[in-house]
Amino acid sequence: MEKTKKFILTEKELPTHWYNIVAEMQNKPLPILNPATKQPMKEEELYPLFAKELSHQELNQTDAWIEIPEEVRDKYKIYRPTPLVRAYDLEKALDTPAHIYFKNESVSPVGSHKLNTALAQAYYCKQEGVTHLTTETGAGQWGTALAFAAKTFGLELVVYMVKISYEQKPYRRSLMQTWGAQVIASPSMSTNAGRKILSEHPNYLGSLGTAISEAIELAMQTPNCKYTLGSVLNHVSLHQTVIGLEAEKQMEMAGEYPDIVIGCFGGGSNFSGISFPFLRHNIKDGKKTRFIAAEPASCPKLTRGVFEYDFGDEVGYTPLLPMFTLGHNFAPAHIHAGGLRYHGAGTIVSQLKKDNLVEAVDIDQLDSFKAGVLFAQTEGIVPAPESAHAIAVAINEALKAKEEGTPKTILFNLSGHGMVDMTAYDQYFAGDLTNYSLSENDIAENVKILEHLVK
Amino acid sequence: MEKTKKFILTEKELPTHWYNIVAEMQNKPLPILNPATKQPMKEEELYPLFAKELSHQELNQTDAWIEIPEEVRDKYKIYRPTPLVRAYDLEKALDTPAHIYFKNESVSPVGSHKLNTALAQAYYCKQEGVTHLTTETGAGQWGTALAFAAKTFGLELVVYMVKISYEQKPYRRSLMQTWGAQVIASPSMSTNAGRKILSEHPNYLGSLGTAISEAIELAMQTPNCKYTLGSVLNHVSLHQTVIGLEAEKQMEMAGEYPDIVIGCFGGGSNFSGISFPFLRHNIKDGKKTRFIAAEPASCPKLTRGVFEYDFGDEVGYTPLLPMFTLGHNFAPAHIHAGGLRYHGAGTIVSQLKKDNLVEAVDIDQLDSFKAGVLFAQTEGIVPAPESAHAIAVAINEALKAKEEGTPKTILFNLSGHGMVDMTAYDQYFAGDLTNYSLSENDIAENVKILEHLVK
Repeated sequence: MEKTKKFILTEKELPTHWYNIVAEMQNKPLPILNPATKQPMKEEELYPLFAKELSHQELNQTDAWIEIPEEVRDKYKIYRPTPLVRAYDLEKALDTPAHIYFKNESVSPVGSHKLNTALAQAYYCKQEGVTHLTTETGAGQWGTALAFAAKTFGLELVVYMVKISYEQKPYRRSLMQTWGAQVIASPSMSTNAGRKILSEHPNYLGSLGTAISEAIELAMQTPNCKYTLGSVLNHVSLHQTVIGLEAEKQMEMAGEYPDIVIGCFGGGSNFSGISFPFLRHNIKDGKKTRFIAAEPASCPKLTRGVFEYDFGDEVGYTPLLPMFTLGHNFAPAHIHAGGLRYHGAGTIVSQLKKDNLVEAVDIDQLDSFKAGVLFAQTEGIVPAPESAHAIAVAINEALKAKEEGTPKTILFNLSGHGMVDMTAYDQYFAGDLTNYSLSENDIAENVKILEHLVK
Repeated sequence: MEKTKKFILTEKELPTHWYNIVAEMQNKPLPILNPATKQPMKEEELYPLFAKELSHQELNQTDAWIEIPEEVRDKYKIYRPTPLVRAYDLEKALDTPAHIYFKNESVSPVGSHKLNTALAQAYYCKQEGVTHLTTETGAGQWGTALAFAAKTFGLELVVYMVKISYEQKPYRRSLMQTWGAQVIASPSMSTNAGRKILSEHPNYLGSLGTAISEAIELAMQTPNCKYTLGSVLNHVSLHQTVIGLEAEKQMEMAGEYPDIVIGCFGGGSNFSGISFPFLRHNIKDGKKTRFIAAEPASCPKLTRGVFEYDFGDEVGYTPLLPMFTLGHNFAPAHIHAGGLRYHGAGTIVSQLKKDNLVEAVDIDQLDSFKAGVLFAQTEGIVPAPESAHAIAVAINEALKAKEEGTPKTILFNLSGHGMVDMTAYDQYFAGDLTNYSLSENDIAENVKILEHLVK
């Protein structure tokens, strides 16, 4: 019998609702706090920054299912449902009894899962009369996704791109410009925050923290303008559950159920997206699936950080979030998986980790590239450096299964392809990349900053 | 009713055979000639360069259907069947009554249709005990496809990459290296041809002609080694018919039949792939579909070249091919659609053009980019500069349909995405690109070289 390689859903099977796991969690995440009053944030307090519906979704703890607007589903159809793929050739290369599946989010026109939430956010903003969006981007995956989403719904977009990425990743910048976004290298002269930094450090190459500050400042000062974020927040994870909801139906087509679900972990949205719909069955139906967040060893908030209230950004503009964190002033090493260089974990995943409902492991940079190359050579797709972390964990689990002689069903999310990240692979082949380790002392020193935030 | 955006076939519906249009052409292409004897080439004379089965396919004029080996179909499943997409948003932007469909070959892991023949060629070589392959690549699409195909079937590959591309397109080079190919900038010191040129012109940045010479020379001098080509030849077009065969079934799902089928045109394989299965119904069933090859204005062999015997390469190593050509010494301008910079058209398409069964139009570089940007902004996918030529023709035909008030069903092949070609878009936005025109005199002067080739 011919083997099925890809499990494909029709457009009619595209999920009609996102899954809001908070409604079904026994221990809800702690409230996010207004940094001035230290009181729980109310929905209205989020309106200046975010669209009302997104603010509502952010704090929604009661509705497990939230309808996907028809206009968003319509645009999802450009690339969704995405394929679930059985990695036969990777299995063969590992000589493992494990069955390895991956959800291929790299087929989106921007090359990653980020479009799932970009389209939703742009849509709600448009609905509410917003005309302009701002955001920041580091590696550029989020910026490219939002650029296409903004163009699709007729919104103007300004992206503050960390200056070093602006210079080193011209392809991402060009992609954003092709979709009509205005891309500004940050720090810039277009905001007070940028001008202040440039006057003190004229040659500063920027950071995500500075870019966030600039994007927020511009949004606050521009009429009909909202700020948007590509990860960390609850509404972002919510939109990403379309990944896991599709995968659930597709695993059924394959006649299997995952023993292990894996996603790489930056702020948490792609891990949440693939995990939450399956985690639901652990919570409600007694399933025993393991959920593993794949962190970079250079930025190990879930494996080695502390659970505390912290800011989401470097400067301290955001609400205080209860999360696993390395401290908002943590400066991660310049690894190529730029999308994973974030100091904290979203509040939902943080709570789930605290309650031992999800696990985390950290992966060294060189191991992630080794896994990425093996995947490219067997399954054909060059993975994004971020996604390669999930692949590394999948490989490790498949090899464990081989050692133990137990067939396991492993599912991971291929969050994006690496076609626009080839300089990273170049440096890997040239032997120019290294691992980065952190001492317990470094981490302890860094999180001291949190001691007096919330008492 | 919800509109269907993508028409998707299951893996079981993947074609089992390629379509060999030569068997059903009333006027067969003239024979290809041995340049020494001027006699028709026999199959055996092709064996030194190509696998036997590929040589057989090259000259096969009797079998209309050639079975796709199971191992090749199995690898096709990594990305095939590819989607047929209705371009609703492009239609809306053009305000046209035309229905525009595109076959999305950009979803292959290498980003283009080239993998359809790369997998087949690597498979047959492996079957016949070949251990090494050589090829040349200009823009890099073909080299990347063959790199993955060679790795898949366990073959070593050496790619001669035109030096200027090697330096200007590092992403393509890295992709080939990630899939395990050895990439050599051409001209190189590894062949007599390369050494000769370098000793005379040490700073020469290479040409496709030189790279072909080097790849052929290495193949001839290496045991168990074959040379491979990514376009022009009949067996390459044959393998690409999987595109049109799928599209035929998908148009049926959409309840339509194309009035116009469009493909960009370099050597002809992608145009042939989308066209031949539909053209079959013009030949056999009285359909009246128009087939339009979209050429770059800077390299207009079908629209402005002559039909003569000519070499396939600059140096004159190949058999003599009866084709529309600008002369094998034609030096096309350095447009960004590198895959379309070829002096001649494959022999099948040349014969079909001579018999008025297919048409051709030429597109200026700036018009191709304008079309590419509109497509990216409406349908989300940044097209390869080559594919943008097909889009430009589709747009022109859709606007004609609007003018005439006649609904038309238009189908084009999106042969590849442009994520690895963003420098081209950058230069377009910066206003750094120009059009290139050729005078009738230039062309007439250039084809003089053909006068004494075959008498």
